[in-house]
Amino acid sequence: MDNTPAPRDTPRSGTRLDSYVDRYAARTAGMTASEIRALFAVASRPEVVSLAGGMPNISGLPLDVVGNAIGDLIAANGPVALQYGSGQGDPRLREQICEVMRLEGIDAHPDDVVVTVGSQQAVDLVTRIFCDPGDVVLCEAPSYVGALGVFKSFQCDVVHIEMDADGLVPEALEQAITTVRAAGKTIKFLYTIPNFHNPAGITLAPERRPQVLEICRRHDILVLEDNPYGLLGFDGDPKRALRADEAEGVIYLGSFSKTFSPGMRVGWALAPHAVREKLVLAQESATLCPPSFSQMAVSAYLTTHDWQGQIKQMREMYRERRDAMMDALRDYMPASCAWNEPDGGFFVWVTLPPGIDAKAMLPRAVTARVAYVPGTAFFADGFGSGSMRLSFCYPTPERIREGVRRLAGVLEAEMELRETFGAGAPTRGLEGRSGYDAPSSDLS
Amino acid sequence: MDNTPAPRDTPRSGTRLDSYVDRYAARTAGMTASEIRALFAVASRPEVVSLAGGMPNISGLPLDVVGNAIGDLIAANGPVALQYGSGQGDPRLREQICEVMRLEGIDAHPDDVVVTVGSQQAVDLVTRIFCDPGDVVLCEAPSYVGALGVFKSFQCDVVHIEMDADGLVPEALEQAITTVRAAGKTIKFLYTIPNFHNPAGITLAPERRPQVLEICRRHDILVLEDNPYGLLGFDGDPKRALRADEAEGVIYLGSFSKTFSPGMRVGWALAPHAVREKLVLAQESATLCPPSFSQMAVSAYLTTHDWQGQIKQMREMYRERRDAMMDALRDYMPASCAWNEPDGGFFVWVTLPPGIDAKAMLPRAVTARVAYVPGTAFFADGFGSGSMRLSFCYPTPERIREGVRRLAGVLEAEMELRETFGAGAPTRGLEGRSGYDAPSSDLS
Repeated sequence: MDNTPAPRDTPRSGTRLDSYVDRYAARTAGMTASEIRALFAVASRPEVVSLAGGMPNISGLPLDVVGNAIGDLIAANGPVALQYGSGQGDPRLREQICEVMRLEGIDAHPDDVVVTVGSQQAVDLVTRIFCDPGDVVLCEAPSYVGALGVFKSFQCDVVHIEMDADGLVPEALEQAITTVRAAGKTIKFLYTIPNFHNPAGITLAPERRPQVLEICRRHDILVLEDNPYGLLGFDGDPKRALRADEAEGVIYLGSFSKTFSPGMRVGWALAPHAVREKLVLAQESATLCPPSFSQMAVSAYLTTHDWQGQIKQMREMYRERRDAMMDALRDYMPASCAWNEPDGGFFVWVTLPPGIDAKAMLPRAVTARVAYVPGTAFFADGFGSGSMRLSFCYPTPERIREGVRRLAGVLEAEMELRETFGAGAPTRGLEGRSGYDAPSSDLS
Repeated sequence: MDNTPAPRDTPRSGTRLDSYVDRYAARTAGMTASEIRALFAVASRPEVVSLAGGMPNISGLPLDVVGNAIGDLIAANGPVALQYGSGQGDPRLREQICEVMRLEGIDAHPDDVVVTVGSQQAVDLVTRIFCDPGDVVLCEAPSYVGALGVFKSFQCDVVHIEMDADGLVPEALEQAITTVRAAGKTIKFLYTIPNFHNPAGITLAPERRPQVLEICRRHDILVLEDNPYGLLGFDGDPKRALRADEAEGVIYLGSFSKTFSPGMRVGWALAPHAVREKLVLAQESATLCPPSFSQMAVSAYLTTHDWQGQIKQMREMYRERRDAMMDALRDYMPASCAWNEPDGGFFVWVTLPPGIDAKAMLPRAVTARVAYVPGTAFFADGFGSGSMRLSFCYPTPERIREGVRRLAGVLEAEMELRETFGAGAPTRGLEGRSGYDAPSSDLS
């Protein structure tokens, strides 16, 4: 086994050690660089098909419309757009955010919306106001790598809850609550991604939604509903949000990163009134105020463009890519692999044949010019080595097909190696390391 | 005394109590709304002259230039500007930041710069990676309200160090280090604003800079040098940064909020290499990445516009306002008041006659249509009631003069009242409350 240290923790030169090593806060120990990060630097080369990243494909955005809207904004409202704004966020944008949420059955008041620097910051601020070291956060198994990073950096204990094809399993949730509380631990909230889950690609079934809410209400557990992909379903209307049926017990997080532009970094939290007050104070402490400029740019885009029509085009584009991935998986992958068929979002979760370690295999995959995210990235506890997340959001359908073909080749070689040498087959990778990987925009 | 509770902590209606009150993290107790916030809502009415806010006057910005630069950016580079970027910040902008810092004698590499959501976020990230609850942060007395808010929210103990007309007093710094360490406490860093201090309006004398660095080096104390106003001096060249003479022991914070646009929320930290690594991880956890869009907009502005010429115009505009304030203070204020003459930045610190409480007087000042920030906002320990911060950055010279005239009238009435009734004179204000106030963009 190769014990090469994680590249990001290595000083730039041998003489530059970290003279601050004894001075960091305890929470900093939870902020560790991903050992797969260096591989992603390689994976960003054009010859590599990256099925790893979560970058939306924004090539369809009408740049002339966006440019004109922003030009008009500066001309008409420059002194406001370039000035400090409210810590809670631009009032007009908060009204528009309520219109967006109405598509998912949410009836909210702009007073209860807090604009954040992407919904990542919303996860950060919620965790900041609720979680002391040792507090438990319940998450799906697997869960979003960026949220796990926040929970770890605030020294929370993550307890994963089983999912099946219909999403979070209510009985498993109930059981986990009982077990955690019996151990004398405090549960601060359930973090859940009900729609087109990242990384699992699964959607919480409609009949389970009231069950999950009922369990959380009965046990007095706050729900943190993260919904960046909600409007990117391939079939039918947007799903009804958990928040639509429970206003006091749910903090809802939304984002314009997947439906418009991640470079704007505009997300939001809709929270019960008292919690919203704390979030605004936390936002003021963190940034004084979110950027007026990008908030008003998003607002101008929503005002001047048929954004719902644009999202419809995006859905069709992503559906075509999902189909390309499904076809390629069926055509190329070994029979002993399993995967789901997501009906929205960006991701599919692949379970590998027994004995194959996705993290150990990654360097060989990158050598074969294809990249993915190993399943361990999405667990706080070292599980997931036998699975991987594939994303179909960014490459073209042809590249997706070619990427899956390469991946299948690597996987078959790996299986053959194991068949020849047994479970002790030599590997050159990073296996045996547990834990999740720090978020980066490439993993979002 | 009026015991009206702080407005921001009051539920929107009598029936909406905070059902989460027992569930917040311990750090949340340190995030309290300012009791003067409601007054600032009143103070933002056009008839009130606000000498309270720290908003830069950006009316001189060439909106056509800014608009065109951003329009060209979207047309030429839209798919990058609208996409996720690096957690560390845009590489081209980081190069330009190094050019900006060169004006203050800093020789830095773009690799060691981390872009933040305003320099407020840089304070937040540095505190996050260094400070455990109970750790001590050394600050000037007084210090920046927004930084104090961050330190409190991370449960730090702030120890204030005396300033005089030449800035931080080296002997007082040395003494504080000894005393704090003798008490068994851990000092994590010295937070200092060497140039055109907010709120004190004072600049650290050139001969003291090596002394402060020497003391911190000898005691192995990290320096957090916050320098948002460094290029806004009224006389001569920019002062040499502390970081220019000490690379390993200083984290330098800069911002485009005062020299270009606060609405972009683009600031930065320049840090020793190992610390920079941690800051990037913390930034990724907090936001995934700072906004590509506003970073590239700032970069385009710096590229296409004579930004140094623009800053020169700003300096002249602020100098004229400083002069207006000095003249008005001399013409109107009671002889028993004292103030300094800042040679840059936005603020002047006024010491009131003995017995006058600036916070208690504020409601009467707002009634008289003038606003300021009471000195207590800038202390973590309840001091400062006999002083106030006046800002000359935003109102016109005529308004500044009128504001000081009104303020002097309120002050004289207050002094007369005290003369008539003695120290126990009835007041209708907020006196007796200690502690500082949470930051808000109006206070920045």
